[in-house]
Amino acid sequence: MTEVANNAARNGVWGTDHPIGVAVLGMGTVGTEVVRILRDHADDICNRVGAPVVLRGVSVRDLGKDRGLPAELLTTDSEALVTRDDVDIVVELMGGIDPARALIKQALDAGKSVITANKALLADYTGELAAAAENSRADLYFEAAVAGAIPVMRPLIQSLSGDRVNRVVGIVNGTTNFILSAMAETGADYHDVLAEATRLGYAEADPTADVEGYDAAAKAAILASVAFHTRVTSADVYREGISKITAEDLETAAAVGCTVKLLAICERVVEGPEEGGKESVSVRVYPALIPRKHPLAAVNEAFNAVVVEAENAGRLMFYGQGAGGAPTASAVMGDLVMAARNKFFGGRAPGESVYAELPIAPIGDTPTRYHVNLQVADRTGVLEAVAGEFAKHGVSISTVRQEGHDEGARLVVVTHHAQESALADTVAALAELDSVTSVTSVLRLEGTEE
Amino acid sequence: MTEVANNAARNGVWGTDHPIGVAVLGMGTVGTEVVRILRDHADDICNRVGAPVVLRGVSVRDLGKDRGLPAELLTTDSEALVTRDDVDIVVELMGGIDPARALIKQALDAGKSVITANKALLADYTGELAAAAENSRADLYFEAAVAGAIPVMRPLIQSLSGDRVNRVVGIVNGTTNFILSAMAETGADYHDVLAEATRLGYAEADPTADVEGYDAAAKAAILASVAFHTRVTSADVYREGISKITAEDLETAAAVGCTVKLLAICERVVEGPEEGGKESVSVRVYPALIPRKHPLAAVNEAFNAVVVEAENAGRLMFYGQGAGGAPTASAVMGDLVMAARNKFFGGRAPGESVYAELPIAPIGDTPTRYHVNLQVADRTGVLEAVAGEFAKHGVSISTVRQEGHDEGARLVVVTHHAQESALADTVAALAELDSVTSVTSVLRLEGTEE
Repeated sequence: MTEVANNAARNGVWGTDHPIGVAVLGMGTVGTEVVRILRDHADDICNRVGAPVVLRGVSVRDLGKDRGLPAELLTTDSEALVTRDDVDIVVELMGGIDPARALIKQALDAGKSVITANKALLADYTGELAAAAENSRADLYFEAAVAGAIPVMRPLIQSLSGDRVNRVVGIVNGTTNFILSAMAETGADYHDVLAEATRLGYAEADPTADVEGYDAAAKAAILASVAFHTRVTSADVYREGISKITAEDLETAAAVGCTVKLLAICERVVEGPEEGGKESVSVRVYPALIPRKHPLAAVNEAFNAVVVEAENAGRLMFYGQGAGGAPTASAVMGDLVMAARNKFFGGRAPGESVYAELPIAPIGDTPTRYHVNLQVADRTGVLEAVAGEFAKHGVSISTVRQEGHDEGARLVVVTHHAQESALADTVAALAELDSVTSVTSVLRLEGTEE
Repeated sequence: MTEVANNAARNGVWGTDHPIGVAVLGMGTVGTEVVRILRDHADDICNRVGAPVVLRGVSVRDLGKDRGLPAELLTTDSEALVTRDDVDIVVELMGGIDPARALIKQALDAGKSVITANKALLADYTGELAAAAENSRADLYFEAAVAGAIPVMRPLIQSLSGDRVNRVVGIVNGTTNFILSAMAETGADYHDVLAEATRLGYAEADPTADVEGYDAAAKAAILASVAFHTRVTSADVYREGISKITAEDLETAAAVGCTVKLLAICERVVEGPEEGGKESVSVRVYPALIPRKHPLAAVNEAFNAVVVEAENAGRLMFYGQGAGGAPTASAVMGDLVMAARNKFFGGRAPGESVYAELPIAPIGDTPTRYHVNLQVADRTGVLEAVAGEFAKHGVSISTVRQEGHDEGARLVVVTHHAQESALADTVAALAELDSVTSVTSVLRLEGTEE
């Protein structure tokens, strides 16, 4: 404790006699784990910060529930808690926009540092919150908001701050990855697997935010913002969910050596090949085929992984548990120790960096490869007619595979990179062809070198 | 530039009129890339730091060589360079103990922050250097010292600072991983592959530091120090290299669904199953069999990967390029931007954390599983005799596989966890048995649940 005493003497405010006070808002899965770690590992945390870190209170919705905590630590009055004089750091784990947004702002305005795991809030209001933090010289940390326990915000914001990130591709939603992995493994239907996921606790009663890609889109916005030093909000993210993925899609994917994953893709787009071409940022979330050999293809069940491609670092991958109480609490606690050290030693978390102000590329301008599955009449000339429609719309074909089938034949067309709009026109035209019974599925293909 | 001007006004010392000065010591592969990035991306770096960062000089051994830099930036006098008044941050990339050690100390004593990639120096002298940094309130950053571009120091020191790390296992040497991957793929002999690696520039003319595991051991010491808040030096690391690995070892490994990797293993050892048992740290580097399904088995060629297991975060993996000019420079530049921000905003890098002071477990006390290959006489009773020796020395057998062979038979024994000393005694006794022609190889087996 000599070091702590020395620091206390040097830093004046905090020390053994005046610990750093923490308020936790919300005691769900993650909040419960944060409170446990704070109480069970107080000695380690004190040693790592340089001063004791003490839990001042936890705000909950229901005071009646037994949480194994002294009653005086619990309150329903979040506002009173965050403004207490003996609270130096606020950990927001209640989720949702309101009242989290106002409470965080109140805390920051009062000079208290804030740790949050609230991706929905950050995806839309980082600008406002970061300005409040900047104004009062407080910290705003949010490692836990993306990919749970996996350190990805700090590597992007700090470790890669001297590099130029070109691409971030991640599996950042555990629920959808659990569903797609199970569909790939068992051949079962989407709705059956979703029901099973709900039963096992991997999907919520209302799974919309996960399965329709809203959660992944919020994370994509946060990732893109820090990767490209540009403010990206959830409205800037093109989003498709997995609810239309069929057992047949997974089967087709397997037949071509691929699997289907819900990807969050953040890409720097450079127009014109020459250095100094006009730059923009493409941010999108959709299910896509990826080759089995791609490092993200092996990420199964509820795990998350993020691949970062930077000019000098090359390709990096970060893998681990993207959700769950203890893993997410690990990320929160890392931020908490850093925020407490900053209070004690007088440092600052890096603030929002949006100097690049790159424009957002519309999805229609973002070329991707496509995998188009057609049910066609089994007669000569079909391939020619189909190929003709692709050519007419300027979509270049990479491979075509024709398979005999009970009722007619199946054509699987894989394109080179094509504009979303050109592909959509092609598909509409294909559906009108006499020889095409139906366009069974259209899936994007990612992770290949063309 | 308004923000920069504001900060300059607020921070007094640095700003547009008074940039942050950088000295680079050594202009080899990494130094050349750091200098290139500093000059080519000055605008981005200025925006990310908040103030301009300017290269003051580079120390080299040979002034005659053309490096595409103005002559006034080059010097052979490193000492004069690091003590210049207009140098705020020193980037040490010369390698080796002397004169790097004295130069870094000189810089830190003068209050200049230091970024280094010098693992050999850090593995033995972090204590001394960290004390100098602490004393003058300067920063000492070393992300690039372990696993090149892969952010692993910052995640361990910061992101996991609120968690309890139990294990760090990594492939942290690209040369040996290139050699072992090539041996596994081609079936070629160690010496032939080493010659090829040298020709391709993956191995140095004198490959000792890499192939005998000294480089990996230095990195293991650095990883263990930060993971366990305990000062670990290279002398504390048990070390075996890969120079005795044979083509037959790789073949045997493949036959049992494994591959051979040079692993750096840092482990918290808890004696007694109950919470609060006596703890120690085991740090070791050796080639070991790992199952093909283990995430590290897929790390091939010169790539690096580090798996971290923490109490709350669970298992995390970090993957990327562990060496090379640009990747290592990316890690250096991230540290440089952070150190420059600290100068500008008044923050501090986390210092050395060694409060836990855990003892080092001797290798003899560290149980691992073994894979023992024996050439035996092809007659009844051999298996019984061999099994008897294992039992006599208290080494429990997991599986035995017997194979017919041209000259006699081959026995492959896989043990449960056993003490190094007990296994060594067993092997000595086996060699004495009439029915045992030779003990072909003894390899450790890692990455399995027993």
